[in-house]
Amino acid sequence: MSTLEDTIGSIAAVDKTAAEVARERQDRLTKPAGSLGVLEEVSIRLSAMTRVCPPPIPEPAAVAIFAADHGVHAQGVTPWPQEVTAQMVANFLEGGAVANALARQVGAEVSVIDVGVAGALPVSDALQVRKIRPGTVDMTVSTAMTRDEAEAAIEVGIECAGELVESGFACLLTGDMGIANTTASAALIATFTGHDVADVTGRGTGIDDETYERKISVIRRALALHSPDPNDPVGALAAIGGLEHAALAGFILGGAARGVPVILDGVIAGAAALVAARLAPDAVDYCIAGHRSAEPGHSATLAYLNLHPLVDLELRLGEGSGALLSLPLVQAAARVLAEVATFDSAGVTEKN
Amino acid sequence: MSTLEDTIGSIAAVDKTAAEVARERQDRLTKPAGSLGVLEEVSIRLSAMTRVCPPPIPEPAAVAIFAADHGVHAQGVTPWPQEVTAQMVANFLEGGAVANALARQVGAEVSVIDVGVAGALPVSDALQVRKIRPGTVDMTVSTAMTRDEAEAAIEVGIECAGELVESGFACLLTGDMGIANTTASAALIATFTGHDVADVTGRGTGIDDETYERKISVIRRALALHSPDPNDPVGALAAIGGLEHAALAGFILGGAARGVPVILDGVIAGAAALVAARLAPDAVDYCIAGHRSAEPGHSATLAYLNLHPLVDLELRLGEGSGALLSLPLVQAAARVLAEVATFDSAGVTEKN
Repeated sequence: MSTLEDTIGSIAAVDKTAAEVARERQDRLTKPAGSLGVLEEVSIRLSAMTRVCPPPIPEPAAVAIFAADHGVHAQGVTPWPQEVTAQMVANFLEGGAVANALARQVGAEVSVIDVGVAGALPVSDALQVRKIRPGTVDMTVSTAMTRDEAEAAIEVGIECAGELVESGFACLLTGDMGIANTTASAALIATFTGHDVADVTGRGTGIDDETYERKISVIRRALALHSPDPNDPVGALAAIGGLEHAALAGFILGGAARGVPVILDGVIAGAAALVAARLAPDAVDYCIAGHRSAEPGHSATLAYLNLHPLVDLELRLGEGSGALLSLPLVQAAARVLAEVATFDSAGVTEKN
Repeated sequence: MSTLEDTIGSIAAVDKTAAEVARERQDRLTKPAGSLGVLEEVSIRLSAMTRVCPPPIPEPAAVAIFAADHGVHAQGVTPWPQEVTAQMVANFLEGGAVANALARQVGAEVSVIDVGVAGALPVSDALQVRKIRPGTVDMTVSTAMTRDEAEAAIEVGIECAGELVESGFACLLTGDMGIANTTASAALIATFTGHDVADVTGRGTGIDDETYERKISVIRRALALHSPDPNDPVGALAAIGGLEHAALAGFILGGAARGVPVILDGVIAGAAALVAARLAPDAVDYCIAGHRSAEPGHSATLAYLNLHPLVDLELRLGEGSGALLSLPLVQAAARVLAEVATFDSAGVTEKN
């Protein structure tokens, strides 16, 4: 049995009994019932994932930034040069990127994994080199990668999740870096949600009207060439996805298999979560949507997965930034359930 | 000159030059311009408030929970007994309330100030007893307090802000506790924004249709009795406000006078900010809206003050909970501006 099959087989349905106990406990805390809104649902879901109420506070946390390049970059879908992927990996390793600053703010560890960067990278102990291939092939020409490569990249993500959990991390956050990766994301989202390409394609990190129209047409050509089948998620991923999407799908599956909450970042993570959800529907119950990205495909993805984002700040950066910003909110949700007094214990009178 | 007049006189306009420097620096950081959305604006506003770019990370932070009772409780505007105000103050002092758990999560100090609780309170070194009177008078019968009492309560807030800043706190968060205080808030919001009472009155911590209709009618009666004048903010506050609203207005003015960011919680803080804004319009530029409360009057208030909330999680608790949850986001905004590398410093290529 492959690592992937083994991982899928070991993902258990979340614990509905623990969720029910958490829901009842929320109503006994010294606050009006329901007054913590969305945080109450998060605390209940954390109980379901961890099979205990109150759930442990999800800490320490680690964000895994999977970096890879995209052959479709050659089609002119972004004004950013491809070399920026490698340059930003160097920036992560130096601690100078937004993800690093946010991780310091919220007390999260940063892991940087090369799963498929095309350019030269600095030698660093902090960089995990697990390159499957130096960038994907242009999906308008052939499949972005072979099925074996897609599966190998998924397994990189599974392994990273497992290693982080073995090291004591109790909360996994998704991060990503890859110039042109919103193009592959839109292709995956159109495939798995059934939305039209134009409805799920955005302007990424900032493109003009002409590039935007080209981006849509490039995605349409790739989908026409491959006719990716959503019922064959690995095949679809190989045809039109990115190596970081594959690794992120594995990371989600790996976290779910270990019973650890996975906080999703934005549209790249969302596209990967669609793949993971087709491989193992129960995996979605271990996911928390960190934020709602400004990309239109992300809202479509969250709706499809029935996930409700915590932070909505018009972010469109990636790197794990939205997941990192939501981490204190997720931890707060668990802490409230664990630490707040009940009406009985605090001697507070309930409403008439 | 009174403490209030003195404080109003010492509130300086924020520094537009520092804001401009911050805006330019945001565009040099290694990320697509604008990709941090709302956080970029927060960092620019923090620079304006603190007159320097990058702004210091707003820490340590303290939440001041001003507690008071409301005579209008006698009109049956809430199903919660009035004694819950005092019981919740005891809960804060024991560390068992939601505000305490959230403060522990985000590393904020909790100050609890009795500015007008009606019931008996525990003796505790942690409680600041600055009671102006034991609850307001029922505003449907007479003014809620005298003008002198309103001004004295405002000065309690000014003094608390000053003491916290003197103790080294670089970020002030508003908190509140007072059964029936959404009623006084709606009366203040209707007065200062000009909205109809029904449009700005909500269900507070949870009331049925009959109580909701009564609440609206009670507020209408009070406004008809007093005809509060928004151009006489202290007079309006005395007529229909609460002692915690007065203290919070002073707290905002005190923070602004010291050049320290003030993170507002929900609808109670918003109503108090309307008073502060009439007394000193520049004070609003030192305010950050922590969250958007589920109360309809809060959205009207934020729109009126032109403040954009950071967190929108359908919270309707008060206590400072929304302000506390937003604190890491505010700190992250400052940290990004201070710590993220620029394109030049990191050797990252810019987009074509």
